[in-house]
Amino acid sequence: MTSSPNTRPFTVDIHTHHYPPSYISHLTSRTTVPYIHAPTSPTSTSAPRLIILPSDDDASLPQSQRGRPLTSAFSSIDEKLAFMDAHNIDTAVISLANPWLDFLEDSELATQVARDVNDDFQRMCAESRGRLFAFGVLPLSGPVEGVVGEVRRLKGLEHMRGVIMGTSGLGRGLDDPRLEEVWTALEETDTLVFLHPHYGLPAEAYGVEHQQGGYGHVLPLAIGFPVETTIAVAKMWLSGVFDRHPRLKMLLAHSGGTLPFLAGRLESCVAHDRVLKERWKGETKRSIWDVLQKNIFLDAVVYSEVGLKCAIEASGARGAERLMFGTDHPFFPPLDSNETQWLSVGLNTKAVESAFEPHQRDQVAAVMGVNAARILDLPVGR
Amino acid sequence: MTSSPNTRPFTVDIHTHHYPPSYISHLTSRTTVPYIHAPTSPTSTSAPRLIILPSDDDASLPQSQRGRPLTSAFSSIDEKLAFMDAHNIDTAVISLANPWLDFLEDSELATQVARDVNDDFQRMCAESRGRLFAFGVLPLSGPVEGVVGEVRRLKGLEHMRGVIMGTSGLGRGLDDPRLEEVWTALEETDTLVFLHPHYGLPAEAYGVEHQQGGYGHVLPLAIGFPVETTIAVAKMWLSGVFDRHPRLKMLLAHSGGTLPFLAGRLESCVAHDRVLKERWKGETKRSIWDVLQKNIFLDAVVYSEVGLKCAIEASGARGAERLMFGTDHPFFPPLDSNETQWLSVGLNTKAVESAFEPHQRDQVAAVMGVNAARILDLPVGR
Repeated sequence: MTSSPNTRPFTVDIHTHHYPPSYISHLTSRTTVPYIHAPTSPTSTSAPRLIILPSDDDASLPQSQRGRPLTSAFSSIDEKLAFMDAHNIDTAVISLANPWLDFLEDSELATQVARDVNDDFQRMCAESRGRLFAFGVLPLSGPVEGVVGEVRRLKGLEHMRGVIMGTSGLGRGLDDPRLEEVWTALEETDTLVFLHPHYGLPAEAYGVEHQQGGYGHVLPLAIGFPVETTIAVAKMWLSGVFDRHPRLKMLLAHSGGTLPFLAGRLESCVAHDRVLKERWKGETKRSIWDVLQKNIFLDAVVYSEVGLKCAIEASGARGAERLMFGTDHPFFPPLDSNETQWLSVGLNTKAVESAFEPHQRDQVAAVMGVNAARILDLPVGR
Repeated sequence: MTSSPNTRPFTVDIHTHHYPPSYISHLTSRTTVPYIHAPTSPTSTSAPRLIILPSDDDASLPQSQRGRPLTSAFSSIDEKLAFMDAHNIDTAVISLANPWLDFLEDSELATQVARDVNDDFQRMCAESRGRLFAFGVLPLSGPVEGVVGEVRRLKGLEHMRGVIMGTSGLGRGLDDPRLEEVWTALEETDTLVFLHPHYGLPAEAYGVEHQQGGYGHVLPLAIGFPVETTIAVAKMWLSGVFDRHPRLKMLLAHSGGTLPFLAGRLESCVAHDRVLKERWKGETKRSIWDVLQKNIFLDAVVYSEVGLKCAIEASGARGAERLMFGTDHPFFPPLDSNETQWLSVGLNTKAVESAFEPHQRDQVAAVMGVNAARILDLPVGR
């Protein structure tokens, strides 16, 4: 598929979040983080509050002011479609927003909520007349068999195109040996894993002024999130997940966090580490570059031409075939609620438009939608 | 100055560390981290041990096995020059290795040790027949007047070309308002600050397997170090240091940590943050891109062509004029001690060689040494 400079490209958003009814309902039933605080007065006009991080649950504030407003942008498919229309997005692959089901301790409940959420997503996509597909969610706090079972069940749901996963895995990170069966199931079923951050870094990493609120959420969101992703995938690589599962397919949020920039330093630090030299003696380990070029896809949610070009270069000679446009909707809305064109979307669109030369319009089209259609088996056209 | 493909470029190493006699002597007098454990038996053939991180001081090991061997590479100028010769490095700007003087609590002692270290550096450079220059060190644990005094005194030391600084500042980070006088003095004296990491991230950021030693030092060195630098400079930017000090000059270690890749996300997170919008109402803040292109220089210690190109692009249209080659010597030596050509140096040299097109040999020469000569006022030639 080619695209001339005068036609807007077929556009797929592969990084866009949603809370379906079953999830909203479950969070509303909870009173500890994460939870939804709904106004108790029937005459209240204030929106329910979404409290997803321990730091959101600030006891010095009334519950009606904690966390963020749970606007309908999180839960309304109509709003999702209106957002897509306003930004010329043809197709979206929606996914549950963090913190997913990481927090569920009751394993039977985890299995059930995962099924309910995935069935909700399947239904909403089926009703969307071809505009919506979804990444499913796994009951990772439950027994491994339940996780593997849901991986296999998702293959029977027509609109599922992979799974979204946080960095905690079964609670001990993505280098946890207990995940082995899960990686095997994901590889065998050719299920793409969309890896997404939630936990960030310990707050002390940011210093006093941040902890006193002086920088808002900038440092955890701008640095903590991408670094969390980088550490998670580095641990997968170091622990040999990509050696044992050479066909595992990952999609990394935020253009890989910082992996494209740090891949060289990672390789070098491994090559200079005595502990790893001794530990890996006689083993052949795949390079991180090889993994970036064969196992890893990156979204194009990096907000700059500089970052996007780096992500493409890190993805190899045909790197432009491995990047996929995304928006992170409904996060990062305009501060002025009258704006219908979102700055966050514009920054990422502009980055794709400007990352290529005028004769490379095909590559713009590839990143904007053609890659997603091919990689995720989506219908092309509008 | 131009360079043809057949001549090796004039090469300056601006990231290369050394422990001068006064510093070795001071660390040897200490018994708490950081300290040097020297063998007590006069017949011992084992090297002294350098214990610089709390995690190095592992009480389950005898002191003769803690930390790392303090090889002569850390303290011998002859070895530094031999390393330079082996890698075709004409000139080096040496600096005290971490943890510098951050740990000194007695402020008079800090002032004195800083002077001794800087005088040592000045003497060694003066004796080097033009091959060595230095970044000085500041007594940051002492009173601000002492810090400012040393900034001014360094201008009188002929071979000094700036100062090296960690991310802790006076102990509370580089966004500490108490640093204001220091930034003013650095700006007024046109003193370049080489910002270098030491503290990394809290260990829990890396998870269980790392904490059990399974990945050696890879995660803290490959990810923690560059992220520490990124957070530090982001905090300087957020707190307005570059607005108040538009002529402050910084050189960021490891090509800015991850700043080139994350700059777009930082800008976007600020533009979408309600707290900052309110806090900064009516103020004009410089963009991080403007700071990258006017205040910040980057070293070329990023170990990949992908990373180096990103660092250059982030530094603006004339970005290749803002990068400077470095080695991080004596860190990252070859694991096989018979190797005279260091892999770590080769990776960075190759990155510079391959980052440019054949017709851009001038830009290779710029990064390898011409930029450093211009920015740091070094004699060109060999």
